[in-house]
Amino acid sequence: MSECVFESLENTLETYIPDAELGEIKRILYGNELRKLTLPQTALDAALEKDFVLQGYVFEAAPEQLRAPRVVRVGLIQNKIILPTDAPVLDQIIALHKRVGEIVEVAAICGVNIVCFQEAWTMPFAFCTREREPWTEFAESAEDGFTTHFCQKLAKKYNMVIVSPILERDEIHGGTLWNTAVVVSNTGTVLGKSRKNHIPRVGDFNESTYYMEGNTDHRVFQTQFGKIAVNICYGRHHPLNWLMYSMHGAEIIFNPSATVGALSEPLWSIEARNAAIANHCFTCAINRVGMEYFKNEFTSGDGKKAHHDFGYFYGSSYVAAPDGSRSPGLSRTQDGLLIAELDLNLNQQSADKWNFKMTGRYELYAKELAQAVQHDFKPNIVKE
Amino acid sequence: MSECVFESLENTLETYIPDAELGEIKRILYGNELRKLTLPQTALDAALEKDFVLQGYVFEAAPEQLRAPRVVRVGLIQNKIILPTDAPVLDQIIALHKRVGEIVEVAAICGVNIVCFQEAWTMPFAFCTREREPWTEFAESAEDGFTTHFCQKLAKKYNMVIVSPILERDEIHGGTLWNTAVVVSNTGTVLGKSRKNHIPRVGDFNESTYYMEGNTDHRVFQTQFGKIAVNICYGRHHPLNWLMYSMHGAEIIFNPSATVGALSEPLWSIEARNAAIANHCFTCAINRVGMEYFKNEFTSGDGKKAHHDFGYFYGSSYVAAPDGSRSPGLSRTQDGLLIAELDLNLNQQSADKWNFKMTGRYELYAKELAQAVQHDFKPNIVKE
Repeated sequence: MSECVFESLENTLETYIPDAELGEIKRILYGNELRKLTLPQTALDAALEKDFVLQGYVFEAAPEQLRAPRVVRVGLIQNKIILPTDAPVLDQIIALHKRVGEIVEVAAICGVNIVCFQEAWTMPFAFCTREREPWTEFAESAEDGFTTHFCQKLAKKYNMVIVSPILERDEIHGGTLWNTAVVVSNTGTVLGKSRKNHIPRVGDFNESTYYMEGNTDHRVFQTQFGKIAVNICYGRHHPLNWLMYSMHGAEIIFNPSATVGALSEPLWSIEARNAAIANHCFTCAINRVGMEYFKNEFTSGDGKKAHHDFGYFYGSSYVAAPDGSRSPGLSRTQDGLLIAELDLNLNQQSADKWNFKMTGRYELYAKELAQAVQHDFKPNIVKE
Repeated sequence: MSECVFESLENTLETYIPDAELGEIKRILYGNELRKLTLPQTALDAALEKDFVLQGYVFEAAPEQLRAPRVVRVGLIQNKIILPTDAPVLDQIIALHKRVGEIVEVAAICGVNIVCFQEAWTMPFAFCTREREPWTEFAESAEDGFTTHFCQKLAKKYNMVIVSPILERDEIHGGTLWNTAVVVSNTGTVLGKSRKNHIPRVGDFNESTYYMEGNTDHRVFQTQFGKIAVNICYGRHHPLNWLMYSMHGAEIIFNPSATVGALSEPLWSIEARNAAIANHCFTCAINRVGMEYFKNEFTSGDGKKAHHDFGYFYGSSYVAAPDGSRSPGLSRTQDGLLIAELDLNLNQQSADKWNFKMTGRYELYAKELAQAVQHDFKPNIVKE
């Protein structure tokens, strides 16, 4: 069974483990059991027709006396690219608009309030090639680009907040590129943008060939459905990045990503989930699917022969909750829409139970961290 | 199948999943496959006779030109208490010394260089009772106590570093109590001590009834076998705590714990492993095993009736590596010794690959964190 055809961990567990033990296995691996969300038949039919996986789960909170449940439905979309990577740039973008648009339509039928697309969703993840052309032509204005206009129309039509991670060209600052998530309000207004804070230099990707560390700090977007933040891709490896979004009040942190099996798959289920637990918030990890082939061969700095792809994007998008529970992962091989109904009251309930913020001793760490970054820092090492 | 008799996740997976898929399941759940450590027959026989589980795994690093492999064997010991909790205090301590001593002897046969015991290993985890007597009588001097003397003898005899987490009474500071790990060098000298930095107020445990947040910062102990640190129990929920031990140079961070199924089991496999990944170091998570019954009933602030225990300690001790791989967990139900042979060169190799320290932007976070703890902190919230 090769890495890329293996459909999902969850399918295998469900197929082979007897019910008597499956409950314990799931409790240990996934935490509190989630109710499946009942989805409209029209949505299920449409997903089948359009050939993508549709799954929905409910994260419940306990009833409170003074606060009503704060229920929001989020949608996570994972997808393959549509056209070959050497098709004309605009054709590729339009094909992706069409595909993601039809998935968003199903999300709307399911009552999704906030949807998030995968990292750099309008293009192949071509940064392994180190070529400038044609990839930089996929870059657009965050505020006024073709893709943002597309999202604004969808947002308004469906009354849905859209998180749209794109390659941004910032014309008013020298035309530099950024890896940026545009947040479009359900009114159709561009609420703002959030740039990728940590830039990988790992495996095939030194993305700083194209764009540098983001300068939008850890802003949080107040939407009608809750306070959200966007931690793009490699930022999920940095616990401080998650922490700081949470410190600024994020209730849901999206992590649109593009990552391949050989490199990161054993890490995938750990990092966003740890962040949800540690920060008493929801996290939504989204990864693209499939192989992407590039016309010109390239090397990977690993002593191996030049090649035309850099591995298999394993999908497996999931939602993690502050109480340690998580949804199953979406398919490793198919396009998909994962819907999670979240009661945001669970954040405060988890915080009141576990008290990580209260017991966090952040003053101490602010001081220690400031010392640790000094050039003449002397580690505290006890010797015999 | 009830929570406490379920033997282990790994047993169930191995029993039911066909080989063709088991490889993928293990890759996703456990990362790179580990070689099993070949253990001496005398050790295996002794473990069988003494009725504890003995397992060993090897974490390998790539060969380097200028550095020889830096191989160290660590031992993680998990165990039940021996006598009833109302037996005389000294009898309870001596019984635990005897039990752990015989496991250490097997560790010595297996060539273990550094061994770590579970949190407050000389006593039942009685802090749920909120009673002072007799539990405070289990407290000892870190430098000159009965248990430290016991560890010094073992350390010298077996040329083994011993991490001994105890309830400490600090006579020179008003006789206050602390939750403290004593680090005994393989020479038999007390190298120093490290106190629990984060104190839980969760579920049955407000441990600040007995002891407060530690004041030993994030010291690291230079042993003959590598630089080690001790992050006691609840500190595993705090990513900054792990980070700071790593900043001070820890190559292996031990996490002696005492935690029960209903509360934390879905979190157990996530947190220490995330710390190993995020900080390019090894982490060793140790949890005790079994039920502990107390003579006087107590309530848990959860509306339920008074009871005599607070749940099932699920063992499942494991080692996590900086490359995202981890060992299987030890038994959920039996005493055990987990041995891991670590090549510490894997730390720098993982760091050079993933570069989380290099890309960590710690200056930014030191500044942001210092702002975030101010009373008049204004979260960065973007509104429409």
